[in-house]
Amino acid sequence: MMKNTLIIGCGLIGSSLLRAIAHQKISKKIFVYEKSKSNISKIKKLKLPCTIIKNFKTVIPKLDLIIFCTPMSEYEKIILKINNYLLPKTIITDVGSSKESSIALVKKKLKKGISWTSSHPISGSEVSGPEFGDSNLFLNKWCILIKEKNSNKKHLIFLSKFWKKIGSKVVKMDSKKHDAVFSMTSHLPHLIAYNLVKTATDFEKQKKYELIKFSAGGLRDFSRIAASNEVMWRDIFFNNQFNISKAIDLFIKNLRSFRKDINSKNNKSIIKKLLQTKKVRKKIIKLKQDINKPDFGRV
Amino acid sequence: MMKNTLIIGCGLIGSSLLRAIAHQKISKKIFVYEKSKSNISKIKKLKLPCTIIKNFKTVIPKLDLIIFCTPMSEYEKIILKINNYLLPKTIITDVGSSKESSIALVKKKLKKGISWTSSHPISGSEVSGPEFGDSNLFLNKWCILIKEKNSNKKHLIFLSKFWKKIGSKVVKMDSKKHDAVFSMTSHLPHLIAYNLVKTATDFEKQKKYELIKFSAGGLRDFSRIAASNEVMWRDIFFNNQFNISKAIDLFIKNLRSFRKDINSKNNKSIIKKLLQTKKVRKKIIKLKQDINKPDFGRV
Repeated sequence: MMKNTLIIGCGLIGSSLLRAIAHQKISKKIFVYEKSKSNISKIKKLKLPCTIIKNFKTVIPKLDLIIFCTPMSEYEKIILKINNYLLPKTIITDVGSSKESSIALVKKKLKKGISWTSSHPISGSEVSGPEFGDSNLFLNKWCILIKEKNSNKKHLIFLSKFWKKIGSKVVKMDSKKHDAVFSMTSHLPHLIAYNLVKTATDFEKQKKYELIKFSAGGLRDFSRIAASNEVMWRDIFFNNQFNISKAIDLFIKNLRSFRKDINSKNNKSIIKKLLQTKKVRKKIIKLKQDINKPDFGRV
Repeated sequence: MMKNTLIIGCGLIGSSLLRAIAHQKISKKIFVYEKSKSNISKIKKLKLPCTIIKNFKTVIPKLDLIIFCTPMSEYEKIILKINNYLLPKTIITDVGSSKESSIALVKKKLKKGISWTSSHPISGSEVSGPEFGDSNLFLNKWCILIKEKNSNKKHLIFLSKFWKKIGSKVVKMDSKKHDAVFSMTSHLPHLIAYNLVKTATDFEKQKKYELIKFSAGGLRDFSRIAASNEVMWRDIFFNNQFNISKAIDLFIKNLRSFRKDINSKNNKSIIKKLLQTKKVRKKIIKLKQDINKPDFGRV
């Protein structure tokens, strides 16, 4: 058991970690740093088992583990505030969804001799805030640990055990591979969902049709994904700009090909495309990433 | 109560209608015409309350109601088979997802003096086949009845009552408006889901990365939508070509603008886009088209 853990940023992910750490008795004490007054009052109302701190000076040197759960655009400001109090033994991680550019920034800003070992738990929700946190949020989910040539091996071992204790399956990869993989499995899908809802809104304004009423036909499912936190997603899109931009290009190329099939009624080509995606669905179900049962509420 | 109903095509929707009609005791007898041998043996195994017919001659003149539940590309063939036996009093409807071009075809092929009154229940699933049917599939869902200048008023009144009896909320619109609305709320979302899964597959082949494993980050939700029946969707895309093609153009225009925001790190513009979609989500929840609760299984 650790003595002291600090969670910086206590929204959906931060408060879920807080709950999981408390539930698994991983740390004697959990400190929370949270800049939003509304979130602080929610945390108090919920009686989450933590001590809210307003400044870092006395707490930081006592810590075993610091977890950054803020949007990535907040990292720099906070690093500059805590730099002076950090000790080399302190394990620092974060839960940001893109890695190459945030790690580059951290390296530049963090005091020499301090290690930062980045994590990415593949879990979340379209809702935000500590009231939606859940100690089981990480259960049976992947957590990516970023392992580079110069990673601190001791900290990697510690964090691997930490994520496993709260139920995650841990996999290690470097930040370059991480950002390429998640540009496709997560970042592009979110961007596409946002873009689809925007397109429907633009269309609704043009035509003055009621679209939302009939959104159960497919649009609804996208609106769920597109309701995710806007600051978090701006940070992800900006930080993984290179991979996402390439992913968009590939997406547009394929969409043009689809449009061509439709306009020329190319039966063979379109059926091939539609069948290909069914195979992917079967793989996802086989890998237990989802279930295959009728889900009539969702179309 | 009607005497005789015929369901042509007994997959997910057809068998759900069969179950709902039987459950609500709407018709004394239900006949089923189904060309797939595998579906026929499933229907028999499931002991669905119907009589399977192999030809139309003797049955058609006795019918009160015929419901086409096949892919739209099958309509012509079947109309030509039943034309000779149809009577003006027989109510004919279908459940196809696009209307203008299918209605134009029907008008051209159907015997003079016979009415066809088109329906579109907004319900379905990504799974296909009679084994997935559900008598509650239409409960509290919209059903669009197509009303044009020359629609048969008696048949419209009958069908409106029919859909309400099996739980649907009925709304009337003309085929032109229908096809525009659903190009945006259903057809484009499905196309986009197919295209996203295709793009991820192409990327996986290029990079030799395992993407599916990490599909819970967003891709998984699209794969569900993209697993829908390929023949049905080919027919919808081909039949609503004009509206879908325009919708794709608007989508690509917006996606380019997103890419520009990302590449130039235009904070103000991207936050505006991301917030706009959140409002749509709130409207959808307000109109009870979905619920707002954390759904941690889906990210």
